[in-house]
Amino acid sequence: MFESAELKHDISKSVYRREEPKLRQALLDAQNDLQRRAHFAVLILIAGVEGAGKGEIVNQLNEWMDPRQIQVNAFHQPSDEEAERPDMWRFWRALPPRGRIGIFFGGWHTQPILDRVLGGLKSADFTRRISEIQRMEKMLCDEGVLVLKFWFHLSKKQQRKRLKQLSKDLKTSWRVTKFEWKLFDHYDDFTRVCDPFIRRTSSAEAPWIPVPGADERYRSLAVGRTLLAALRERLDEQPVKRLPDRTPPLLPALDQLNVIRALELDQPMTKDEFREEYEKLSARLFALTLHPRFQDISVVTVFEGNDAAGKGGAIRRVTRSLDARRYHTVSIAAPTEEERAQPYLWRFWRQIPRRGIVGIFDRSWYGRVLVERVEGFCSEADWMRAYGEINEFEQELDRHDIVVVKFWLAISKEEQYRRFKDREKVAYKRFKITGEDWRNRKKWDAYEGAVCDMVDRTSTSFAPWTLVEANNKYYARIKVMKTLCDAIERAIKNVKKKKKKK
Amino acid sequence: MFESAELKHDISKSVYRREEPKLRQALLDAQNDLQRRAHFAVLILIAGVEGAGKGEIVNQLNEWMDPRQIQVNAFHQPSDEEAERPDMWRFWRALPPRGRIGIFFGGWHTQPILDRVLGGLKSADFTRRISEIQRMEKMLCDEGVLVLKFWFHLSKKQQRKRLKQLSKDLKTSWRVTKFEWKLFDHYDDFTRVCDPFIRRTSSAEAPWIPVPGADERYRSLAVGRTLLAALRERLDEQPVKRLPDRTPPLLPALDQLNVIRALELDQPMTKDEFREEYEKLSARLFALTLHPRFQDISVVTVFEGNDAAGKGGAIRRVTRSLDARRYHTVSIAAPTEEERAQPYLWRFWRQIPRRGIVGIFDRSWYGRVLVERVEGFCSEADWMRAYGEINEFEQELDRHDIVVVKFWLAISKEEQYRRFKDREKVAYKRFKITGEDWRNRKKWDAYEGAVCDMVDRTSTSFAPWTLVEANNKYYARIKVMKTLCDAIERAIKNVKKKKKKK
Repeated sequence: MFESAELKHDISKSVYRREEPKLRQALLDAQNDLQRRAHFAVLILIAGVEGAGKGEIVNQLNEWMDPRQIQVNAFHQPSDEEAERPDMWRFWRALPPRGRIGIFFGGWHTQPILDRVLGGLKSADFTRRISEIQRMEKMLCDEGVLVLKFWFHLSKKQQRKRLKQLSKDLKTSWRVTKFEWKLFDHYDDFTRVCDPFIRRTSSAEAPWIPVPGADERYRSLAVGRTLLAALRERLDEQPVKRLPDRTPPLLPALDQLNVIRALELDQPMTKDEFREEYEKLSARLFALTLHPRFQDISVVTVFEGNDAAGKGGAIRRVTRSLDARRYHTVSIAAPTEEERAQPYLWRFWRQIPRRGIVGIFDRSWYGRVLVERVEGFCSEADWMRAYGEINEFEQELDRHDIVVVKFWLAISKEEQYRRFKDREKVAYKRFKITGEDWRNRKKWDAYEGAVCDMVDRTSTSFAPWTLVEANNKYYARIKVMKTLCDAIERAIKNVKKKKKKK
Repeated sequence: MFESAELKHDISKSVYRREEPKLRQALLDAQNDLQRRAHFAVLILIAGVEGAGKGEIVNQLNEWMDPRQIQVNAFHQPSDEEAERPDMWRFWRALPPRGRIGIFFGGWHTQPILDRVLGGLKSADFTRRISEIQRMEKMLCDEGVLVLKFWFHLSKKQQRKRLKQLSKDLKTSWRVTKFEWKLFDHYDDFTRVCDPFIRRTSSAEAPWIPVPGADERYRSLAVGRTLLAALRERLDEQPVKRLPDRTPPLLPALDQLNVIRALELDQPMTKDEFREEYEKLSARLFALTLHPRFQDISVVTVFEGNDAAGKGGAIRRVTRSLDARRYHTVSIAAPTEEERAQPYLWRFWRQIPRRGIVGIFDRSWYGRVLVERVEGFCSEADWMRAYGEINEFEQELDRHDIVVVKFWLAISKEEQYRRFKDREKVAYKRFKITGEDWRNRKKWDAYEGAVCDMVDRTSTSFAPWTLVEANNKYYARIKVMKTLCDAIERAIKNVKKKKKKK
C-alpha cells in the first residue's frame, strides 16, 4: 500500500511558492461552487501515523479555503452523551450537510484499529467493525456524499526521525508524549492490522489515498490537488446516457393473500375491558421504567400504520403511563431543510434516545420503503438498498442495548372511510384530515404491497414487527401496551445477564 | 423474512391451466431474446429447506424453456479436482456465459450454512464466508450478470407434513433419508443461522426472494413470473440520462519520483556469474518441487513487465528447472470468445493449478488495471473496483495454500528502444515486435502511472509484488529464480507448521 508513499518525495520552496497560490484560488472557487449549488456534501477523513502531518493539513485546508464552510471534527474519547449511543452516533451527528466540507480528524477507523492493536479487540469483532465501516461508507456514497479518505504515512525510520525532531523543538515537544512513543513501539503491529484494514475498506467509490507524510510541501500540494480534482470532477459532471440501476423484481402477488389481509382486523374488546386492562398495563409500564436496570437500556418504539389507524391515540396511551422525563416523542413529517441536506437516516440517528429514555417515533425511517417508494420520491435502487441499511441501523441499536419495538397499525379500507368521514364531520378532528389522506387512499393496494415487503424484509429477531389489528381501538391500544411492556421486561433481563457475565 | 411465505398460498388447477401456457410462451420468447442478443448471463440460485420444491422447480424451468440453453449445476461433495482448489473455484467454472441461463442447485451458501449448524464452523469464519459471498455476488452484478436468488421456504409444521408425505409415497420415499430428518431436527438452529445470513447477503442488486414452498402450482407460477419479469426488465432496458459512476481521483504525481523510477534498472552481472548462480538456483528449485510437502501446495507465478522486458526469457529459465509434469504455462493474449462471455476473472480462475503444480502466467489478471485501464477498454469504476477484487482473489488462493509470486520486470525506455530495434533487425526475433508495441511505447508515462498504482494497491503481505530491475537480463533472471525459490521454501515450511497444528 505504501510503496509510493515511502519514497523520498519532496517539493522545493520555489515550486511550492509558484503552485500554492494557484491551487488556493482554485480550491476557493470550487468551494464557492459547492456551496452555491449545494448538490452534495464532502467528507474528508484524515488518518495515518503520528507526526505525518495530519494536524497540519487540517489547518492548511482551513487556511486555503473559507473556514466558515468547513466543519472540522476531532474525535477523542467519547463524551457521556456519545457513550450512551451506538458507536456510529457521534459520526452521524457530525456529518456535513450538502454544500459543505466536513473534515473528520480521526474517524470510525481509529478506535477499531487502536483496540485491535492495543486493547485486545478480537479478530472476529474487528472483522465486524470493518463490515460496519464498509456499509457506512457505501451508504454515504450511495447517498451522494463525496468521501475522500487520506492516509498519512511515514516509514518506521521516517517516523522515528520525525518524533525526535518534534521532541527537540520547544514549540512542538508537547505533541510527543509517552503515548506517541508507545504507538511507535507498536509500529509493526499497526502495520499488520492496518494493511488488511486499508485493503478491505478501500472501495471504488471511497478508496484510501496514501499520502507520503515526510515532506510538508509535498503532502500539502498532494492533498490539495486531489481534493481540487475530486471537487471539480463532481461539480462539473454531466449526465450521460447510461443503463438504469438494476434491481430484480420481487415476487409478484399471485393471489389475494398477504400478511396484512391475513389479519383478523376486527377484534373484540369493550370499553370496560379496555379500562381494566389498561390500568394494569399502565402501572406495569411505569414500574418497568423505574427498574434500576432501565438506566442501562434505551427504548425506541416505532408507530407506523394506515392513515387514521390510531397511531396518535395509541402513542398517547403509552406516554400517559410514563414520567415526562422518561420519554420523548418524535413526529416525522416532511423533512426540514437541514434534514434534506443529509442522508435520509440522519434525521433518525439524531433522535436516538439516551439511556433510560423511551424514544417514541410517530412514523419513522420506514417512510423510505413506504411513502417514498410508492410516490416515487426515491429510485427503486434506493428503496431496495434501504431494507439492508435499516436492518443494519436497527442491529446497531440492538447491539447497544436499545430495544426496538415496531408497530404496524392496520385497519380495513372500510374502517378508514368511516374514520375519514367522521373526522370531516367533527370540528376538532378536522385538522387531522387533508386532501393528501384521500389521495393516499387511492393508492391503497400499492401501499399494502409495500407494507408486506417491508414486513418480510425488516422483521428481524432483534427488531420484529408487531402487526396490530386496529379496527377496534381498544384492542389495538392494549396490544401495543402489552407488547411494549414485554419487550422492555425482556431487555432488562438480558442486560442483567450481560452484566453478570462481565 | 418468511412472513409472507408462510401464509397458506395456493393456486387452483383451473387458474394454473389458464396461466401456465401464457407464462411458458413468454419465457421461451425471453430466453430466445437473451440468447440472440447475448448481452448478459443469468444466474439462478435455488436454495431453501428440503421438501419445499427446489428440485421440482429446476425440472419445471427446464421443461418450460429450451433446456439446451440452460446449464443446471448441482453441488454436492467437492470432487478431488475441486477439493484441490479454493472453495469458490467450483462455482467459477460453472458460471453461465452471456446469453445463457445457469441454475445453481445449492450454491456458495450451502456449505457455510451446513457447516455453521452441523459442523462447528466458528462464528468468525462464518462471517468471513458471508463477506466472501457478498463480494462474489457484488462482483457478478458489477460484471452485468443477472443474479436471481430464490429461497424456498416451509414453516416447521409444513415441512414435517411434507417429509411424511414424501416418505409414504413409494415414488418419493427415497428422497427422505435419515439425513433429511436430521436436518429437520435442526429446523430452529437453521432458522437462527439462515436469518442473519439471508439478511446479510440480500443486496439491492441481488436480494433473496422468499418463495412459499407449500403449494406446487403457486411456487411454480411465482418463480416463473419473477424470472420472466426480471428477464424482460433487463432485455428491454433503455439507456437513460444519468450521472456517471463516481470514483475520486487518486493522488496526482507531483514530482518525477515513483516506485518504478526509484529502481536502479542497470544492475551488474556477467554471463559467467549468471551461469554459476543459475546452476545452483535451478537445482534448488527442482529439489523444492520434489519435497514431499510440495504436494500440499500449489504455486501461481505472475510475470508482468514492459514490452521486451524479458518475460519470456525469464519464464524459460524457470521452466527449464522444472519437470514438465510439474508446471503449466498460461500465455494471456486477447480473450477468446468463450472468455469474453464471462466476468474478467473467469479465464484466470479456470487456470488455477492443482496441488503440486506451478502455474506460470505470462501476463495475467493485472491486464484489467494496466492495458484495459490505459486503453480505456473498461470504465474507471471497473478498474478501480478491480484492485479490491484482485486482492480478494489472491487472498483466496493464499488461504488455500497457493503461493502467489508476482514479478514486474522493468526496463528503461532507452533499453526498450534498443531491444525493439534489435528485434526488427534479427529475422527470428521479428515475430516478437508489432506495431502495437510501438503504439504502447507512446503511452509510456500512462502505463508507468498505472503500474505504480497497481503496486501500491495490490502488493499485499500474502501476495507482494517483486519489482525486477531488468535492463540486465542475467540479473533479472537470477532475481526471479531466487525470489521464486524463497517463496516456495517459505510456503513448504508454513504448510508443515499448519499440518502439525492439526
